[in-house]
Amino acid sequence: LSFVGFGNVGRALGRLLLRKRLWLQERYGLDFMVTGIYTARHGAAIDPAGLDLEAAIARAEADDSLEVLSAQPAPAAALDFIAQCPADVLFENSPVNYTDGEPAVTHLRAALNAGMHAVTANKGPVVHAYHSLSALARQVGRRFYFESTVMDGAPIFSLFRGALPGARLLSFKGVLNSTTNLILSRMESGESFERAVAYAQEMGIAETDPSGDIDGWDAAIKVAALATVLMDTSVKPQDIRREGIRAITPEMTRAALAEGQRYKLICSARREGETVVGEVAPERVAAASPFYSVSGTTSLMQFETDTLGRLTIIEEDPGPHTTAYGLLADWLNASAQA
Amino acid sequence: LSFVGFGNVGRALGRLLLRKRLWLQERYGLDFMVTGIYTARHGAAIDPAGLDLEAAIARAEADDSLEVLSAQPAPAAALDFIAQCPADVLFENSPVNYTDGEPAVTHLRAALNAGMHAVTANKGPVVHAYHSLSALARQVGRRFYFESTVMDGAPIFSLFRGALPGARLLSFKGVLNSTTNLILSRMESGESFERAVAYAQEMGIAETDPSGDIDGWDAAIKVAALATVLMDTSVKPQDIRREGIRAITPEMTRAALAEGQRYKLICSARREGETVVGEVAPERVAAASPFYSVSGTTSLMQFETDTLGRLTIIEEDPGPHTTAYGLLADWLNASAQA
Repeated sequence: LSFVGFGNVGRALGRLLLRKRLWLQERYGLDFMVTGIYTARHGAAIDPAGLDLEAAIARAEADDSLEVLSAQPAPAAALDFIAQCPADVLFENSPVNYTDGEPAVTHLRAALNAGMHAVTANKGPVVHAYHSLSALARQVGRRFYFESTVMDGAPIFSLFRGALPGARLLSFKGVLNSTTNLILSRMESGESFERAVAYAQEMGIAETDPSGDIDGWDAAIKVAALATVLMDTSVKPQDIRREGIRAITPEMTRAALAEGQRYKLICSARREGETVVGEVAPERVAAASPFYSVSGTTSLMQFETDTLGRLTIIEEDPGPHTTAYGLLADWLNASAQA
Repeated sequence: LSFVGFGNVGRALGRLLLRKRLWLQERYGLDFMVTGIYTARHGAAIDPAGLDLEAAIARAEADDSLEVLSAQPAPAAALDFIAQCPADVLFENSPVNYTDGEPAVTHLRAALNAGMHAVTANKGPVVHAYHSLSALARQVGRRFYFESTVMDGAPIFSLFRGALPGARLLSFKGVLNSTTNLILSRMESGESFERAVAYAQEMGIAETDPSGDIDGWDAAIKVAALATVLMDTSVKPQDIRREGIRAITPEMTRAALAEGQRYKLICSARREGETVVGEVAPERVAAASPFYSVSGTTSLMQFETDTLGRLTIIEEDPGPHTTAYGLLADWLNASAQA
């Protein structure tokens, strides 16, 4: 196994792998070595005989360089690292770039071309290069998987890939952005918008610049990723009709609550003829709706298919550990199939 | 493809297959012939060159015998039918028997031994013979699948089989019985228990003898099936602590509603050391709970694993068409893997 990016998510995956090692052997007859880790801030390390994963996690968390762990001179550039590191899988977790998905797209392409499964928690490559990376993966007999990009580790993509064969997705509707959900919940209790944003930042949920969440960009990217993959089309975040929550006031949320309703930032997409129309906008929902009970960091997604009634998936308590689980699941699914 | 049992579910599967035929060819390169149908009330038909499925559905719905469609003398006994019908898959949909799962268990075993995938919507064989039928399926290189037995076509079993590798199920909790859910909802609007039961019967949801639902047996069987398969144990319906809804009055449901709560028949199971403890009992749930919004025939199941936060699946509008979809998905998954 190899890692490009070893931040919160990469290290959470490292800890999960260590915790599950025995169980993976017993249950799947699967063992692993980590042969390389590349980071932007803590250097890189390669050892074809296997790195000490525990030591690597400890060093990265202590802000120490990984280079001392390397059995050979570790390259300074990520692409050289991917070329030189012998591995069956690349876990790509470099920072997200919403504009063109780079450099993650290039990393994932290099990994596939080097015969590795390409696994990422990064939405950029899904939105910008899903079709080309999937085609390349098929061509080289490897897998490009990205379960953790939407609803973290909850198995949305593998659900449709494996568990819903023969079903055609007609539309979906859900709550996918934790920050706006938390802000709307806090405003119901009387907090100002600004105070609610600050709270979300203190909790580590909102970014220093929260506009990506508040203006609906994060939600639009997730809608684009889901539509692109599950509806076999190509939708860009800019194609999504997008309205954030800046116009919602604490008074509005409390007035809604008094009438038994809550505001939620609703994400949706539906087929219209040959195209797919996506939308992100705040809506009032009633207590009889499952959206009503979506609080804090919970995500909810409803799917309408041509075969089943409406199917709803709810994920609670996401975090780096669930993102890590999605990456692990992607690896297990890729190795089981390839 | 062959069918034992051609009632509402079998015929719904037949219609779904006809509707999806072109799409299955385009998407999966998969074509099919129905080579045999065995029924208890409309005779049986076998044709190795393929039966006219549309005609078979029409005849069964007109209460006509299927025998005229048969290319050879069709046997009177189901086991003889399975032995003589050339097929890759048996869809077993004979009536449910909660005592020992027969004759479905014997039919499924015969199908596997004849080299067919064994697919059923019948809970009996799952509760009574899951481990032995799965072992036999592994031995003969076929599949024993039963997605439609709990929450109809919603992909609960394949979710854990394929989409959640490496996750260990610790507990589950949900609402699985439509009849009691409908009765409790109707009582909230002031209907008497007896009138609500009669309504559920008129809707075709409750049986003529509704005690299996009202006393929690149907729910207990579903808990036993989920625990047996997903927690890799062996739980019988009789092992489940079971309390039905007979003690709940319309007054109780309205008093709860006045306090913002609703009664639901909650199904659950959890690991306790080496064993699994299952329970079915009515509970009051608050509006902040996703259980609150489970109305009518909706089912909801929450799963706690060692890796993800709580994961919830909700299925709406089940019926013979969703049961049929689960059978189709089982076939597609079995052929993709075998």
